[in-house]
Amino acid sequence: MNNDTICALATANGVGALGIIRVSGNESLSVVQKSFPGKNLEKQKSHTIHYGYFMDEDEAIDEVMLSIFLAPKSFTTENSVEIAFHGSPHIGKRILETLIKNGARMAKAGEFTLRAFINGRIDLSQAEAIADVIASENEASRKVAINQLKGGITNEISILRTDLLNFVSLIELELDFAEEDVEFADRSALNLLLDKIDLKLNSLIESFQYGNAIKNGTAVAIIGKPNAGKSTLLNALLKEERAIVSNIAGTTRDTIEEVLHIKGHAFRLIDTAGLRDTVDEIEAIGVKKAREKVDQANILVYLADAATEDFSEDIEMIRSLQREDLKLIICATKIDEVSPVKYQAVEAAFRKEISADFDFITISAVENQNIQDLKNELSSYVEQLKSQENNVVVTNQRHFEALRKSLEAVDKVKEAITFQISTELLAYELRNALEHLGEISGEVTNDEVLGNIFSKFCIGK
Amino acid sequence: MNNDTICALATANGVGALGIIRVSGNESLSVVQKSFPGKNLEKQKSHTIHYGYFMDEDEAIDEVMLSIFLAPKSFTTENSVEIAFHGSPHIGKRILETLIKNGARMAKAGEFTLRAFINGRIDLSQAEAIADVIASENEASRKVAINQLKGGITNEISILRTDLLNFVSLIELELDFAEEDVEFADRSALNLLLDKIDLKLNSLIESFQYGNAIKNGTAVAIIGKPNAGKSTLLNALLKEERAIVSNIAGTTRDTIEEVLHIKGHAFRLIDTAGLRDTVDEIEAIGVKKAREKVDQANILVYLADAATEDFSEDIEMIRSLQREDLKLIICATKIDEVSPVKYQAVEAAFRKEISADFDFITISAVENQNIQDLKNELSSYVEQLKSQENNVVVTNQRHFEALRKSLEAVDKVKEAITFQISTELLAYELRNALEHLGEISGEVTNDEVLGNIFSKFCIGK
Repeated sequence: MNNDTICALATANGVGALGIIRVSGNESLSVVQKSFPGKNLEKQKSHTIHYGYFMDEDEAIDEVMLSIFLAPKSFTTENSVEIAFHGSPHIGKRILETLIKNGARMAKAGEFTLRAFINGRIDLSQAEAIADVIASENEASRKVAINQLKGGITNEISILRTDLLNFVSLIELELDFAEEDVEFADRSALNLLLDKIDLKLNSLIESFQYGNAIKNGTAVAIIGKPNAGKSTLLNALLKEERAIVSNIAGTTRDTIEEVLHIKGHAFRLIDTAGLRDTVDEIEAIGVKKAREKVDQANILVYLADAATEDFSEDIEMIRSLQREDLKLIICATKIDEVSPVKYQAVEAAFRKEISADFDFITISAVENQNIQDLKNELSSYVEQLKSQENNVVVTNQRHFEALRKSLEAVDKVKEAITFQISTELLAYELRNALEHLGEISGEVTNDEVLGNIFSKFCIGK
Repeated sequence: MNNDTICALATANGVGALGIIRVSGNESLSVVQKSFPGKNLEKQKSHTIHYGYFMDEDEAIDEVMLSIFLAPKSFTTENSVEIAFHGSPHIGKRILETLIKNGARMAKAGEFTLRAFINGRIDLSQAEAIADVIASENEASRKVAINQLKGGITNEISILRTDLLNFVSLIELELDFAEEDVEFADRSALNLLLDKIDLKLNSLIESFQYGNAIKNGTAVAIIGKPNAGKSTLLNALLKEERAIVSNIAGTTRDTIEEVLHIKGHAFRLIDTAGLRDTVDEIEAIGVKKAREKVDQANILVYLADAATEDFSEDIEMIRSLQREDLKLIICATKIDEVSPVKYQAVEAAFRKEISADFDFITISAVENQNIQDLKNELSSYVEQLKSQENNVVVTNQRHFEALRKSLEAVDKVKEAITFQISTELLAYELRNALEHLGEISGEVTNDEVLGNIFSKFCIGK
């Protein structure tokens, strides 16, 4: 790992009052010095700010503020400089070009954070947490990412590792005295410890379902026959959302699909294209198309027009879409057009024919109250994923895989004890479990894994 | 003017590695302190950086770096704090909400810069220059804005003011001794001084044409009969441009119209919608439509197919579009299809019929050389606007108006001297000229003018 001088724009693209260019590497002070004749940078203290002009030869590019961070007290642990300029992208480009002329090179994606990891300032799960913090779009994802950044998962893992290491030392003591056939490690005590570790690993692994919902949002499919009121519902759900989003000026979002935030959690409404128009989706949505949507979903919101008499088509559709891990919410729509007796009958009709568990909600576009009922139902789905015991939530696929592999090894250890298989195998599987845990914090890693992780970062981080 | 605590996002909207929130006001340290329990901010030196967690009550919102600037050594001259956070818009929103809970309020557009002006750190033309620096999209606009930020125009104006003030003191001496009918101010020397001021004002006023081209770009209309090769030319011009723009990752631009940068100057191609498609503009562009385009243009590039025999329609079109202040470039296109003799004949045909001055260029989509010829022609138009004597360029409409009014007053003074009108009138017009010059630096101003200027700033500046 070399530590040549790297530079990149650290702030978002586009015009702003300020832009920041980050420079890191042991030579970063002298690289910046070539464009900042006003002050001797080598003589400045760490964590100080300096005003002046950033020059390209004799030409003043911009009035800037330099922030100096001296090794090892910087993000990367190397000497670093942050250049705050008037936020014109053109000026940012000129400054970067000049820095490159001065001997720096453009940083690769995630290279600053990679250096922070390689140089031991943060572990791998914290490096990943930084990307998650930056990408966090709501309270749930922010909280989990900040917790991970503060070392939340690292702490959990280190407790597990300590337990496993205690175990390993006892087992290896036995191996040392193998010919004497002694059992230093009381097998029943060991079993208790393994059960504890098993429980903890399982709880972390289970938290991934919630973690995934936090990180990627919960996918919701809204299905119903034509004129069941899909577009009206969607407008009611998203109208409020938009008001929240535009509440404070300066927040923008790219909408690839419609996203709804409820109590700090994201819900992705699948394939809503066209639904927002005044007419409902193209006549008679086919079962095949509906199933494609529902296949990607965690929740199915099925809309049935309360004013109709015959629900056999709806029931048939629901039956064909049902899935064990799919939460089903049936909404009787247009209830302002019928009597309460009628929509009780609607619920009864569905309860009689649909064997699966489902929530029943009555909705009217006029009454906003019922929209809130639906939101509460969606929200409760995510809430019940939240583990009670564990406040560390696994959001990262890589961590999830490592935990699963670790659990597999632990289970093999338990099996080896139960069937009194060789102590060597016990030791081997224990080390296996430890190694997989080590992957999470990056104690055990390789270039390919690092490449995968950091290539997904943005440039400048 | 109160100095309550204001806050705003200072970096561009969107996701970045870093985002910066700026806080200013005498109470800004204590407002931020409520969310930064880790360190006593009041005890920190100016221009220092502090690491910690930004809290909302007991909840860590993000890991941040605070930069502290103590009065009067800050941009606003008030106590200021800049909060660097992980650049998620959601986190930015949470931090702003917390600051508001702590007693700050959202800053209005340009309010930080307004405070810098009100508190005397910069003059009004420098405040305006900050907005221009941020908006600068090419070298020419950046250079002029930086020069103005460094006080370029202020210095020119102050020289003029000194000259005028010398004059005023002599005239007022005469007024004091009015009944004695003495002339302290030698009229011929005064006339020389006035000529000098006149010249300077005129030169500044003239520079506005170039300044305007720098700030708003030069408008270019490309006109020609169907199949004259407009879309091919446009593609050739813009292909290269796009390569330059995307050269360094991280530069984006909103395209309202197609903009071409040549030697650091912007050229706006008027109404190119549709031209970029494979087919040329809708059959037979009407004279009316062509005139509308050309009315907004500084340059008309007229394309004529070199392979045709009869140019009478083209000539008629050009004649109807001609304007005294319009630069005309006639391009013979598709020259790869004809012999050199033929396109010399084409030039002769136009020279014979078009009385106005024009440049003639031959173009072939295949040969890139000729595209460069056209670019040089466009570029030379802007270059010749550049004044030789004056390196201060007026880019601001408000400054332009003030200079014109000042010149008017100076001319009235000259008239008063020539026709020996009363010394009182002389003094009155001189003070008038001085006052208009004072508007530029903001020595003479009012709330409406300030409101106009700063409302055009972005929030956070």
